[in-house]
Amino acid sequence: MGHPIVDVLAPTEDEVVARLGLAKGTMTLVDDETSAIIYGALGPATEVSGGSAANTAACLASLGAPVQFVGKIHDDGLGKVFAHDIEAIGVRYETRPAIDGPGTGRCLVMVTPDAEKTMCTNLGAGETLQPSDIDVAAVASAKVLYIEGYLCGKPETTPAVERAISAARASGTLVALSGSDPAWVGLVRDALWGLLDRTDILFANEQEALGLAATDDLDEAVRILAKKCPTLAVTLGSKGCIVVDSSGSVAVPAESVEHVIDTTGAGDSFAAGFLYGSINDLGPQVSARLGVLAASEMISHLGARPLTSLADLARTAGLI
Amino acid sequence: MGHPIVDVLAPTEDEVVARLGLAKGTMTLVDDETSAIIYGALGPATEVSGGSAANTAACLASLGAPVQFVGKIHDDGLGKVFAHDIEAIGVRYETRPAIDGPGTGRCLVMVTPDAEKTMCTNLGAGETLQPSDIDVAAVASAKVLYIEGYLCGKPETTPAVERAISAARASGTLVALSGSDPAWVGLVRDALWGLLDRTDILFANEQEALGLAATDDLDEAVRILAKKCPTLAVTLGSKGCIVVDSSGSVAVPAESVEHVIDTTGAGDSFAAGFLYGSINDLGPQVSARLGVLAASEMISHLGARPLTSLADLARTAGLI
Repeated sequence: MGHPIVDVLAPTEDEVVARLGLAKGTMTLVDDETSAIIYGALGPATEVSGGSAANTAACLASLGAPVQFVGKIHDDGLGKVFAHDIEAIGVRYETRPAIDGPGTGRCLVMVTPDAEKTMCTNLGAGETLQPSDIDVAAVASAKVLYIEGYLCGKPETTPAVERAISAARASGTLVALSGSDPAWVGLVRDALWGLLDRTDILFANEQEALGLAATDDLDEAVRILAKKCPTLAVTLGSKGCIVVDSSGSVAVPAESVEHVIDTTGAGDSFAAGFLYGSINDLGPQVSARLGVLAASEMISHLGARPLTSLADLARTAGLI
Repeated sequence: MGHPIVDVLAPTEDEVVARLGLAKGTMTLVDDETSAIIYGALGPATEVSGGSAANTAACLASLGAPVQFVGKIHDDGLGKVFAHDIEAIGVRYETRPAIDGPGTGRCLVMVTPDAEKTMCTNLGAGETLQPSDIDVAAVASAKVLYIEGYLCGKPETTPAVERAISAARASGTLVALSGSDPAWVGLVRDALWGLLDRTDILFANEQEALGLAATDDLDEAVRILAKKCPTLAVTLGSKGCIVVDSSGSVAVPAESVEHVIDTTGAGDSFAAGFLYGSINDLGPQVSARLGVLAASEMISHLGARPLTSLADLARTAGLI
């Protein structure tokens, strides 16, 4: 479950980012009007499907897992692009598009000459996801329900999230949750913390883990979060990841990548690899290695959807 | 003047192209329904603005020339993408979007693993361009009116083309015409031939020149076409170009490009460089070199819009 987003990638000079009053390297949520103003100030762009949980779903399909995505688009041009791309990679996608209200969510991605990214996200129709959009039978028949943190902690989408979690808990479907973004964790920390009692697998990067655990010590954050969730996966960028579950703790280093082109989607793809391992009972070590492998593919090219078959990569690496 | 098009680039296996009944490496015009069926069969894609004359306009803006594009989009998502991208590069664009009828034109570009492209173009709203969309005063105040061959020879857009040409001839604005595509030249050869009496500058590649002149000998084609048009520019791919005008004939070799990534837009960008030279009275030799320089930038990356300032490139090369 997540926000369907189409990324609008625009090469942008540093002074344009500054003139727009944006802090370089950050992600800001913007309304329709601000999004239109910023878009108007940007140069020619390229459109490509994105969205955190949608990227994870695309990676799971690329790994060969049956996967369904739930999220609200508008019945507009960008919505059709999003739906085509996610279905084309093999993800089931049945959420009915909105026919009024805001347009399909978009993320203006300003790529400065140093390859850093400054993002302004307009969640658009994604925020209108309703409880009636949740197919309870589909949740019940799934092995894992994965929820993007961006959906949690706000009044618009909380009822849909609650309905999905209730359906999962009632049927033994595992609940997995992502932190999504350190700034977002800061904004809705208490709501996310409240969900941890019903979360089986938590994904967080270092900053998100610190924010959620309300500490500035990573070891302490891991201890605190591992006590709340049966499985905790903390991603550490170039340092790989730590996984803690009932069997103990596992640290897996990052794969060496010759040229890191674009780290967008690294966390999303890690979650996909790890979930693939989890639903196939491959154990925390192999699951973490699958996560790291998927992330290494993602950061070696521009964009947050896989360009090669992750299943082939995983087979070559002897992981599946 | 041309068809506004958004390119939908999808990496595609050879067997998918074959299964769709398409001849690899060709461009086919398709209707809405066929376009939707083919799109449904393709994998995830990337959207980027294109269109032959629109690419030329973008290159002219990148060279620093004041330029206006005329072409019909629909008031839909892809139309907004097209309008943003062409305005963002500095092209004036004022054609009113259609609010009913077909959607914004799109070109499905299937990129097979050998980097060859098979294209299916749905011209969409572009074909609804009306005489009322032609700003006669703007044509009269321009140095050159450049018309994409795809607009010529069909009943839908001929009245708009005729209005523009009449305005140009009445005011001393030069008329430039492109062949667009060998298959298209084959389809509308007589109509294009009929326009040559009112054409000052003709752009054609080798196959288009042979088709227009109705011969299979290039030297003869050049002689025939040069008799009809004051200025003839024939592009020869990796062999550069030949320009013939009243001062004689000039051959300019292609720039050496280390890695040819994607030849889409090579002809469009050549036309832009040549026109820049023409409107600034730089003579046929420098104009041709500007065309070749712009084309060399275009084929060194994916996509048909410039990624670097063509004006900077031209200054570095000492051409402007």
